[in-house]
Amino acid sequence: MSTEAAPLSATERTRLRRHKERARTDRTDLYDVLDAGFICHLGVVVNGSPRVLPTTYARDGETLYLHGSSANAGFGAADGQEVCVTVTHFDGLVLARSVFSHSVNYRSAIVLGRAVVVRDETERGHALRAIVEHLVPGQWDTARTPTPKEMAATSVLALPLAEASVKIRTGGPADEAADLDLDVWAGVLPAAVTFGAPEPDPALRPDITIPKHISSFPATRARATEA
Amino acid sequence: MSTEAAPLSATERTRLRRHKERARTDRTDLYDVLDAGFICHLGVVVNGSPRVLPTTYARDGETLYLHGSSANAGFGAADGQEVCVTVTHFDGLVLARSVFSHSVNYRSAIVLGRAVVVRDETERGHALRAIVEHLVPGQWDTARTPTPKEMAATSVLALPLAEASVKIRTGGPADEAADLDLDVWAGVLPAAVTFGAPEPDPALRPDITIPKHISSFPATRARATEA
Repeated sequence: MSTEAAPLSATERTRLRRHKERARTDRTDLYDVLDAGFICHLGVVVNGSPRVLPTTYARDGETLYLHGSSANAGFGAADGQEVCVTVTHFDGLVLARSVFSHSVNYRSAIVLGRAVVVRDETERGHALRAIVEHLVPGQWDTARTPTPKEMAATSVLALPLAEASVKIRTGGPADEAADLDLDVWAGVLPAAVTFGAPEPDPALRPDITIPKHISSFPATRARATEA
Repeated sequence: MSTEAAPLSATERTRLRRHKERARTDRTDLYDVLDAGFICHLGVVVNGSPRVLPTTYARDGETLYLHGSSANAGFGAADGQEVCVTVTHFDGLVLARSVFSHSVNYRSAIVLGRAVVVRDETERGHALRAIVEHLVPGQWDTARTPTPKEMAATSVLALPLAEASVKIRTGGPADEAADLDLDVWAGVLPAAVTFGAPEPDPALRPDITIPKHISSFPATRARATEA
């Protein structure tokens, strides 16, 4: 882990009030949780009510870029406003001897701050490239790049990683000592997002073979994330 | 699919403004997306700013029950307030010939409405049972049930399924006709949440064997969801 990143200091809004042992204060933990995800959930306030919208994203240094459509009402509402972006990995079900000690293994990052719709065309292109490369490293340079019309239909939201919290739960159940002798199986059902074999488009030109960055996915992605 | 459920009518807040072909209006689609999930994202407004909190949940008929701690600030803020609960399944990456036509296969449900913290002890017990059984069918009857003190430390939020939308994207890339001849591989990288073999707690009593509802998980869960 890098020691160069600033610590992830809690603010009044991000300080954990319970399960403090799950909090991480190393900024590289924040990077790791964000870099491993495919989908984030964007929280915005629309007419006083919350909306939670799933979308793709990428981290670029200390900035989170979210992908959306120019027609997306949530993105319009988020421009210049306080938002919350949450990335959660579901890592398993923790089965305990008591119902109360049941839990979930997970990694989650919550980022708070004021989001802005990116208007500079160079930054928009940079952000879109970051999002595509975050999802499938090597993909941007093989696909046709966006036309001005396509760029106009695309919206990018930027959020600084200034205020954030990371929570991680790993390991087995934490039963009360008095419950350890109960006649109940206890342990973890480990979960992960896994990928099946690539499925070629039925309309794929028959002479096109699968490129290395796709045939070796998601191993290439893990390496890119580690870099 | 059942034909008994009322249709899922769009309101001004849930009507899709783009990709209308992804909208589903059959209420059983809403049930299917909710019942297949493990984690939801709860959106609440705290001091005017949105928060997006991951938590476990279950659907019980036309009610969504969310699990939390009595010490959870987000749950306190949600009581009696407008919330948004989103469940998203990430089903794959859609690689197109153009960057613009890249997409994600997913199923998502967004439920809007006023949430209340459940205070009736009978309903709280019913809700907790629903959440445990939703995650791992058969588990409630094997584990030790909560004591009054444990119940007091647990919080349950209820939200009616009155206003909701469902979006589902499946299938391959939808490239422009002019792009079909490009020298670019196109197709889908299918994704799913998968479970590894159950990992017994190191402190498990050596005479306790794994019960059938756990050794056959998640197949049992799929059957319970289909029932």
